Amino acid sequence: MVDLNRRGLVLAAGGAMAAAGIGASSWAAPVAAPSGRKLGYAIVGLGSYGLGVIIPQFKHCQNSRLVALVSGDPAKAQRVAAEYGVPERGIYNYQNYDGIRDNPDIDIVYVCLPVSMHAEYTIRAAKAGKHVLCEKPMAPSSADCEAMIAACKQAGKKLMIGYRCHFEPYNLEAIRRARVGEIGKLRYFRSEHGFTANNPSAWRLKKAMSGGGSLMDIGIYALNAARYMTGEEPNAVYATERTDRSDPRFREVEDMIEFELEFPSGVLGSCMSMYSANQNHILLMGDKGRIELEPGTGYRGNRLWVGNGRENEITPPPGPGANQWAGQLDHMAQCVLQDRQPIVPGEEGLRDIRIIEAVYQSAREKRRIALRA
Amino acid sequence: MVDLNRRGLVLAAGGAMAAAGIGASSWAAPVAAPSGRKLGYAIVGLGSYGLGVIIPQFKHCQNSRLVALVSGDPAKAQRVAAEYGVPERGIYNYQNYDGIRDNPDIDIVYVCLPVSMHAEYTIRAAKAGKHVLCEKPMAPSSADCEAMIAACKQAGKKLMIGYRCHFEPYNLEAIRRARVGEIGKLRYFRSEHGFTANNPSAWRLKKAMSGGGSLMDIGIYALNAARYMTGEEPNAVYATERTDRSDPRFREVEDMIEFELEFPSGVLGSCMSMYSANQNHILLMGDKGRIELEPGTGYRGNRLWVGNGRENEITPPPGPGANQWAGQLDHMAQCVLQDRQPIVPGEEGLRDIRIIEAVYQSAREKRRIALRA
Repeated sequence: MVDLNRRGLVLAAGGAMAAAGIGASSWAAPVAAPSGRKLGYAIVGLGSYGLGVIIPQFKHCQNSRLVALVSGDPAKAQRVAAEYGVPERGIYNYQNYDGIRDNPDIDIVYVCLPVSMHAEYTIRAAKAGKHVLCEKPMAPSSADCEAMIAACKQAGKKLMIGYRCHFEPYNLEAIRRARVGEIGKLRYFRSEHGFTANNPSAWRLKKAMSGGGSLMDIGIYALNAARYMTGEEPNAVYATERTDRSDPRFREVEDMIEFELEFPSGVLGSCMSMYSANQNHILLMGDKGRIELEPGTGYRGNRLWVGNGRENEITPPPGPGANQWAGQLDHMAQCVLQDRQPIVPGEEGLRDIRIIEAVYQSAREKRRIALRA
Repeated sequence: MVDLNRRGLVLAAGGAMAAAGIGASSWAAPVAAPSGRKLGYAIVGLGSYGLGVIIPQFKHCQNSRLVALVSGDPAKAQRVAAEYGVPERGIYNYQNYDGIRDNPDIDIVYVCLPVSMHAEYTIRAAKAGKHVLCEKPMAPSSADCEAMIAACKQAGKKLMIGYRCHFEPYNLEAIRRARVGEIGKLRYFRSEHGFTANNPSAWRLKKAMSGGGSLMDIGIYALNAARYMTGEEPNAVYATERTDRSDPRFREVEDMIEFELEFPSGVLGSCMSMYSANQNHILLMGDKGRIELEPGTGYRGNRLWVGNGRENEITPPPGPGANQWAGQLDHMAQCVLQDRQPIVPGEEGLRDIRIIEAVYQSAREKRRIALRA
């Protein structure tokens, strides 16, 4: 159960959103980056996200630098290393990966692999004495998540999950306004998240690699937003899945899934996830108005309205980094430098995966599933 | 079960949307009005809808004229009669209402009373030998609806429900484009309908008069749209209600209710109804695009987009009447003149009420409720 009074008091007393704690129930905004020392990152996986999205961000970072790459493709690794100034000793493959333990340049490993490999490469990094930033969704199962958390704890290393929206200015501003009561008492949350998965051979569509379909990959943004926008943890879910199994893209994983989240305060959450259309929308309704984002969790171009309808468009103050990825990379580096818990630690990833498991169970069993407090 | 192939063939063969039949499963567009004879209407109830919305529409009608009023307020009735040219013999109260049987001016009775009075005044009209147009929602219970249908059938009189959106150009155009396959195979329907009920003493908020809360009054637009946009009847529902019972407006009826509709073809419907915020939105997604209306079911100002996103805004061709109410009034008159079944007969109202009963049951019992075919 969420202690709403306590959180309300904390906010009222200090306006402090950066209070200690984890997860949506004690949501905390990232603090500004201290300049100075840069920690070294190893990027594991040179796919479209690791190579195309993450690696180009280091030039925007204050506390993070790229020092190593892990790839199964030696030529690609050489090419990327040359382009980004990664030294020869920073190039690894999946066989010699454990050798990162002997590379003092590497402080943090960022796991950008298919979901099924997250647990293994997180645990091996922790055993090699490295902190870990792991892409979302955290893992195919809550058991995997628990093992990842345990491994990092045992190694005395930090574990953070790549929830970039927690470092994105429009989402941060939406959360801030919700928390200070700008739309009154919260009542209803709605989010639709989807994109058109066009490539039938993408690993996202192979259950053994992805752990699931649209919910794991894109619907998780709606779920995570439901939690950070309301600041609560759901205590029951109901879900219905609709997938055209004759579509070659969806032989193994779900396309469309609608799910409802019941929150202890009475807020009702309703989410839709799909792999067959582009949709990116967040709505939070209170008894005095609404907060709306569309797109809400895009790489760029997000928009925010606060009030009633879409008359009052908001331009938020800058986020903690030059962009959401730089903010995320630097936050992890700062947590290591200052020995703080990341605002989106492994426990945050585990929470989403536990809820996702309940959502899948609800869809299978066609019944409401209560969640443990 | 809906015979999709049969409907598809009918549409492909003739482009004929005005085929015989009832309800969403055989949705039919109203045909153009023949000019000529005007049938006489008695308006029962001079409240905000009957007096403020319906009565001013007769001047736009081709086959309908106002000939009688039924009111419990003699002074108001006299004033309205004088303003609209209703003769003295056309003024009734609730005691002498059955005397309409002796007034040959009256062909059709339009029941604009609180919901709890719909059955009684429909049945008495039928027994008085008059056709009936009854406002939505049809009645507080399906048993009432069945009694209304039986009474009109026994009297050999027509019964139509006031689903104005079936005569509204934007909705008709949206339906037409969905039916001809412009957005491909239908996948998902979503609608949010709400308004801020400000007056705690309104009859809408008294359960004995309204039969229920936002779902009966405004959420029914989302439900009816789910049926006419998809052309299908749901075979299961799931619902969650959230009402602040400490709010003086909501001591007796629900405020917010979220409900899911499962359709036999696999289309998933998701609807939200509320009495505590303004919301009016309809989204229909197909595998080749989407149809969106916002507002979707307003008295005026509706907007329609077809394609992907909101790039392609559509201005529909004119509807069957000068406006949705004139179209509705004239449709009923034409059905009487031509001895046709209205496109939204009593059975259409009964269908919604049966689904609403299942939605309420689902919310009470926190479980999925299967609907009889």
